[in-house]
Amino acid sequence: MKGKDISIDSTTIELFDKAKSDGVETIWDRKDAMKTPCGFGEKGLCCRNCSMGPCRISPVSGRGAQKGLCGATADIIVSRSYARMVAAGTAAHSDHGRSILHVLHMASKDGNYTVKDEKKLLEVAKRWKIDTEDKDIYEIAHEVAEYGLNEYGKSFGYLTIPDFVPERRKEIWKNLDIIPRAIDREVVTVMHSTHIGCTGDAESMIKLSMRTALADGYGGSYMGTEISDVLFGSPSTRETEANLGVLEENQVNIIIHGHEPSLSEMIVLVADDPELQELAREVGADGINIAGMCCTGNEVVMRHGVKIAGNFLQQELAVITGAVEAVIVDVQCIFPSLVELSNHYHTKFITTSPKARIKDATHIEFNESTAYGSAKTILKEAILNFKRRDREKVFIPSSKSHATVGFSYKNIIRHLDKVVNSNIDVAGTVKPLADCLASGVLRGAVGIVGCNNPKKVHDESMIQVIKHLIANDVIVVATGCAAQAAAKAGLMCRDAKDLCGGGLYRVCELTDIPPVLHLGSCVDNTRILTVVGEVAKHFDLDMSDLPVAGIAPEWMSEKAIAIGTYVVSSGINTWLGVVPQILGGPEVVDILTNRIEDWVGAKFHVETDGHECAKQMIDAIEEKRKKFEERVGHRAKFDIKYEENKVQKMANAVLNRSS
Amino acid sequence: MKGKDISIDSTTIELFDKAKSDGVETIWDRKDAMKTPCGFGEKGLCCRNCSMGPCRISPVSGRGAQKGLCGATADIIVSRSYARMVAAGTAAHSDHGRSILHVLHMASKDGNYTVKDEKKLLEVAKRWKIDTEDKDIYEIAHEVAEYGLNEYGKSFGYLTIPDFVPERRKEIWKNLDIIPRAIDREVVTVMHSTHIGCTGDAESMIKLSMRTALADGYGGSYMGTEISDVLFGSPSTRETEANLGVLEENQVNIIIHGHEPSLSEMIVLVADDPELQELAREVGADGINIAGMCCTGNEVVMRHGVKIAGNFLQQELAVITGAVEAVIVDVQCIFPSLVELSNHYHTKFITTSPKARIKDATHIEFNESTAYGSAKTILKEAILNFKRRDREKVFIPSSKSHATVGFSYKNIIRHLDKVVNSNIDVAGTVKPLADCLASGVLRGAVGIVGCNNPKKVHDESMIQVIKHLIANDVIVVATGCAAQAAAKAGLMCRDAKDLCGGGLYRVCELTDIPPVLHLGSCVDNTRILTVVGEVAKHFDLDMSDLPVAGIAPEWMSEKAIAIGTYVVSSGINTWLGVVPQILGGPEVVDILTNRIEDWVGAKFHVETDGHECAKQMIDAIEEKRKKFEERVGHRAKFDIKYEENKVQKMANAVLNRSS
Repeated sequence: MKGKDISIDSTTIELFDKAKSDGVETIWDRKDAMKTPCGFGEKGLCCRNCSMGPCRISPVSGRGAQKGLCGATADIIVSRSYARMVAAGTAAHSDHGRSILHVLHMASKDGNYTVKDEKKLLEVAKRWKIDTEDKDIYEIAHEVAEYGLNEYGKSFGYLTIPDFVPERRKEIWKNLDIIPRAIDREVVTVMHSTHIGCTGDAESMIKLSMRTALADGYGGSYMGTEISDVLFGSPSTRETEANLGVLEENQVNIIIHGHEPSLSEMIVLVADDPELQELAREVGADGINIAGMCCTGNEVVMRHGVKIAGNFLQQELAVITGAVEAVIVDVQCIFPSLVELSNHYHTKFITTSPKARIKDATHIEFNESTAYGSAKTILKEAILNFKRRDREKVFIPSSKSHATVGFSYKNIIRHLDKVVNSNIDVAGTVKPLADCLASGVLRGAVGIVGCNNPKKVHDESMIQVIKHLIANDVIVVATGCAAQAAAKAGLMCRDAKDLCGGGLYRVCELTDIPPVLHLGSCVDNTRILTVVGEVAKHFDLDMSDLPVAGIAPEWMSEKAIAIGTYVVSSGINTWLGVVPQILGGPEVVDILTNRIEDWVGAKFHVETDGHECAKQMIDAIEEKRKKFEERVGHRAKFDIKYEENKVQKMANAVLNRSS
Repeated sequence: MKGKDISIDSTTIELFDKAKSDGVETIWDRKDAMKTPCGFGEKGLCCRNCSMGPCRISPVSGRGAQKGLCGATADIIVSRSYARMVAAGTAAHSDHGRSILHVLHMASKDGNYTVKDEKKLLEVAKRWKIDTEDKDIYEIAHEVAEYGLNEYGKSFGYLTIPDFVPERRKEIWKNLDIIPRAIDREVVTVMHSTHIGCTGDAESMIKLSMRTALADGYGGSYMGTEISDVLFGSPSTRETEANLGVLEENQVNIIIHGHEPSLSEMIVLVADDPELQELAREVGADGINIAGMCCTGNEVVMRHGVKIAGNFLQQELAVITGAVEAVIVDVQCIFPSLVELSNHYHTKFITTSPKARIKDATHIEFNESTAYGSAKTILKEAILNFKRRDREKVFIPSSKSHATVGFSYKNIIRHLDKVVNSNIDVAGTVKPLADCLASGVLRGAVGIVGCNNPKKVHDESMIQVIKHLIANDVIVVATGCAAQAAAKAGLMCRDAKDLCGGGLYRVCELTDIPPVLHLGSCVDNTRILTVVGEVAKHFDLDMSDLPVAGIAPEWMSEKAIAIGTYVVSSGINTWLGVVPQILGGPEVVDILTNRIEDWVGAKFHVETDGHECAKQMIDAIEEKRKKFEERVGHRAKFDIKYEENKVQKMANAVLNRSS
């Protein structure tokens, strides 16, 4: 396997080659060793939900077993496995949200964790109808935490659906009986319903999955985002750099990797501790350089501008630079291979969560109640390790890109306000964005999310899709590893507007944003939902009426399936660039890529080619625009009163281009 | 495949042959078609927890992939899959418990559901420290329901551990950090921790599984049992019959199948409705004959003596008799094959639960709030179907066995009181049982539980194990499909004492019990835990100190893995008669069959041969007895004051036999 076959990212290729000469193994070597994957597994036609099997069936060939021992058909087996993916993904996201709520519950004025965004706390409290009058901010914080935690386990009633969801969307869910109850209960219901001898109907199984996924998107993930903003501050525009070139030759390099910000926030804070800075100098380093990987990276770059080391497929490569003193991880998406790999170099691989211990890693349990001290212990270990760095083994690639990040919903509004004529229009709304969409200056918006997957050339599809979309005046918002791919490729620079169509170019220019907005980590997909919901409400439309779409070009995790399912259930067409293991179930495929559209106004599309995905998305967006323009077009024309001149310019640009 | 190769049960063999001549398919045909099962799946060396794979690895051969793409080792893959089995099993049981709590919450004096065992309700309320003074019984019931439901979702603290658990057992759990928090949360934690990039350490993964399993045994299942007793009455001794011979030529035969008693109780009640009885006569039937299958059968036989149609592997055979008007099901262990099979006969296959819809079945949703009416609708459908019965196709096997059932913890105590000398000793305690164990009159006690599995000759291992044990003075308590196997084999008759050793023979004679006690459905394994816990407390010992053991000779469901895990975690050695799909993980195997003993004082044993299992169990019990007798032997001798003569006789019998 050659470097260019595995990635479009130069640092990845360089370090892949270094791995070979260092004689260490990477995921691509393991992929090579895997050879032909199991055909039954790939189609989802294998069931181990009881011990009568394992059952693997061949309904298409007509030879061999046609059904599982219990009589489960292909669609039963496949739909159950799909549901369990959604359950696991929802569990992962929601448990992350729960952790953050527990941190909020222990926050105190002089404690390890404080409330950084009081305004947001009060907004959340108001939304949840928590009385705040005459209450101390921490009293409110604890009540908010209790309310949020109760959403996971309440015995009666339904999830509190966020205000931004249009009424007609809620009606659709109600009619389908997919409004979630308590978050944990939905996960448990799916685990129960997928047990041998329970749900044997693909339609029912997928509806139960949708209900669970909604508990993720509008419950667990949503709280993960909201409460992280309360605790650690809502993101605002930050300048940063991305890719493994951010590692420093003469500093203690520490990679923070995983997902929950409670650990990474504390690491970032503690790194400034004079005692640790002194210790770094003592061991001969110029300082401490923290860089983030995967969603932990997204959390800290959004709030502090901490540099992005890379995305999912680069976690091993960071160690292979030989310049990393420690990889500090909490939960999700952490390769167990990092243990053995770290031993080939001087890197300390430190696990911190009881939910994700890894055999033979250095485990220093991070304790939220003594967080500062815990973080300090962990960092000390890392700094002291600088002395063990073997200069012979060090190679830091030069490549890194500039990026402007930190686009929370509020921050997007702040940027939009730049085009609001304060004499005529109200600031602080989505109206400018809505008007750009209505007028066609922006043809649409796409959320690009999800992981890397070695089935695809690393980052390739992501970048193909994004470039194609922005060239066609579709604004892109990004989270997770997709956001990091965009940042590394320079698409989160303001200069990237040069790659855009005329409409998006002007929007970027006027509002001072890059054409690809970093919206955060994978739980922060709820920020995307918020924007879509608010714009729909602005037009008095449903979310499915807007010219928007979602895509996960290189997804790999069960979380991505949960996300895709709640996004489609929200009425947003979603493209998957990796084929999910469901092709063996014809009814399941038909439901997810066809019939579900009748239920919720959107469906899944599966397409592995990046360019083709982008083309399909643009076609779908233009198709949506027909009806959308009919309904909002005229009004939009007359509504664009502010900065009319500028908008006219944008419109002209679009017209000139398309003529 | 010949009949004798599939079962030791004559009705099963007869109907298996009828299936062939009727040209219909059964599970054994599907097993035939499955041919060689997947070697990777059988060892648990296949992972689909993300979409980078499927990954299948061959660590032993040394050829092919040694690790999953993420670097997951065999032990990581296997331990995660084990944990997900526990999570699914716990979800199934606990969700069942939750349903019953919701029914209690809607119970009212004149409602569809009432409180049948007020005394037990008050006991539960007291245990949970719910103030009952001056409160209406339904007010108490609703508070108890709320307390119970809160155990599933409370945001803080730990599960309320039942009083019968000895302090030193709780200490063991505390030291291992496996005391469960809220029930649902534990399932979610496991689903999170098994997500790609989380737990990569077999020991940690198994401890998380143990915590989840304890949430099942001492939480969800326990509440399923306790609250079912409150609502539907605690079981008492009932005479009944078991096996498909209980079907009636000239009656409307209705099979109730599944798990939760809220449906089946109502069906049993409604069957006596004069209107329906009249309807039955109108269609030409002599009456309505309800028979139970799987755990639904266990629930209604324990409380009403409703006849047992059969266990898991007989569900298709019931339809194949051609004499069943309807199979009415709720959740768990229901073959989806029943749809197609029912179409070959006149049988209506009616699903009732939103958690277990099956494609093309007649779905009549059972609504607890209008339960009587719902049940009546369902039964009418069944009765009217009697006219469609094709007499040509009918064959009802003649075999059925008498059985004495209904041994709740309280009912066991009632029977034990028969040997208490009321002048000297206190009635209503486990003392007589404890004394029999201490003196060696009973060598030990074994709980036999779990399913059928076509990997084994149907019922064979169950019966081998039981016969061997009772012949050696080990009393047997049984639940689930194992209990039904025993009932069908005549081992729940009082006459079965003739198969016992001298000690158990005398105990059966004196206390008027069969040597195999039916303790209920699979959630009712908590009744077994209660007996063990109370006896341990009587001796001021831990549960692991007693000469007791558990076995699931023909298990197949994920529930069985959850059960096995909480039983072992309770300090009770447990035998599995079907090899779990974990052999590919050497550390997992070592932990579960070896190291776990250091943690909790018990371990798993895997042995597919019934006789061999029984021998091993007896050896283990005798081994336990050594220390046990040292600690309680003398005291027991002096404590046996009541009915001394009778106990002496028992002791002599034992001595004579062993000499």
